[in-house]
Amino acid sequence: MFTERLQQQIQFIIEIDKLKQIYRQNLLIDGSRRENDVEHSWHLAVMAMVLQEYSAEPVDLTKVLKMVLLHDLVEIDAGDTFCYDPEANLDKAQREEAAADRIYGLLPADQRDEYRALWEEFEEGRTAEAKFAACLDRLQPLIHNYKTNGGTWMMHQVTSEQVKKRMEPVKEASSILGKYVQWIIEDSIAQGTLKE
Amino acid sequence: MFTERLQQQIQFIIEIDKLKQIYRQNLLIDGSRRENDVEHSWHLAVMAMVLQEYSAEPVDLTKVLKMVLLHDLVEIDAGDTFCYDPEANLDKAQREEAAADRIYGLLPADQRDEYRALWEEFEEGRTAEAKFAACLDRLQPLIHNYKTNGGTWMMHQVTSEQVKKRMEPVKEASSILGKYVQWIIEDSIAQGTLKE
Repeated sequence: MFTERLQQQIQFIIEIDKLKQIYRQNLLIDGSRRENDVEHSWHLAVMAMVLQEYSAEPVDLTKVLKMVLLHDLVEIDAGDTFCYDPEANLDKAQREEAAADRIYGLLPADQRDEYRALWEEFEEGRTAEAKFAACLDRLQPLIHNYKTNGGTWMMHQVTSEQVKKRMEPVKEASSILGKYVQWIIEDSIAQGTLKE
Repeated sequence: MFTERLQQQIQFIIEIDKLKQIYRQNLLIDGSRRENDVEHSWHLAVMAMVLQEYSAEPVDLTKVLKMVLLHDLVEIDAGDTFCYDPEANLDKAQREEAAADRIYGLLPADQRDEYRALWEEFEEGRTAEAKFAACLDRLQPLIHNYKTNGGTWMMHQVTSEQVKKRMEPVKEASSILGKYVQWIIEDSIAQGTLKE
C-alpha cells in the first residue's frame, strides 16, 4: 500500500526512539537525574542556532543541525562511552561503525549515505561544521558540570588537566567560547568543584 | 569579562534545560515511561529531515528545524496541555504568550524577535513551514500511540473521530502522510486499540 521508501523511513523513525533511553554521565542542570542522548542532541541543536556567530569559520547551519541531531545515533547499539574512560574508548570506533551500518542501513540508500557521511564528517572533525559541532558537544556538558557543582568531574575524580585537554576543540572552533570555557575551568577550580 | 550578549545567550541555554522535565501524555515506543518535550522536539527535527520530500509545498528545511526545535519552549512555564482536554485548552494561548515573553526575552533582541516570530508562525499555521511542522507534530505521537497498543487513546478513552479531527493538519500538509495516518487509524480500530 505504501512505497518501500516510506516504510523504510518510518522504520528508521521508530528505531531511533531508542536513543531516548541511552543515558550519559552528566546530570540535568537541576541535578535530578542523568541526561539522555536525545536531550543532549536537542540542546546542541539549539546552541548551534544561538551561538553560530562565534564560529571562527563560517558554517552551514543546516549541516550543523543535521550533524548534531544525528551524531549520537550509533549509541543505540554501541552505548554511551564515558569520555574520561580510556579502556572503554579502545574499541569505541569499531562498535560505532557496526552500529552505523545497522541504523543508517534502515533508510533508503540516498538518505543512508547522506546521514552516515555527516556522522563520519563529525567524527573526523576536519570541516568547519564538524569543528563547530565538536565545540558544542564539549561545551554543553561543561556547562552542566559547572551548574551542578562539578557533577561528573567530582563523581569520577576528573582533573582540570583532563578537562582542559577535552576542551581543546572549543578553542579551535571559537576563540570567544574558548575563553568562556577557560573562565569556567578557573572558576570551578577556585570553587573546589574541579581538582587541579 | 564577557559581552552582555554572550551572557544572555548562555542564560537562555541554561534556562531551556528545564524543557527536559516537561512530560507529555504519550509514552515512549517501548512503553516504559512518558516522553518529555525535548525528546518530542528532537524526534520532530529528525522527521523533518527524513520526510521533507512528502510536503505538499516546498519548505525551507532550516526554518522547519528551528521551528520544531523551539515550538514547545513556552511549556517550561505553561506546562504541557493535553490536546484532548478542552478545558485546559481554554486559557492555553494566554499562558503561552506570557511564557514566550519571559523565555524568549532572555535572549538578545535580534534572536528574541527571530525565535518568537518562528513560534508565532508555527502557532498560526499558515506558511508551508508551519503546516509541515504541524503535520509532524501530529504524526509523531500518532506513531507512538499506534506502537504502544493505543497508548494515550486507551488511557483517556479518545475516539477515532477525535483523532481524525486532530490529524487534519497532516492531510493538509502531505497527501501521502495523510493516507498513512488514515491507515494507522483504520488498523487501530480493527485491532481494538482505538474506539470508533
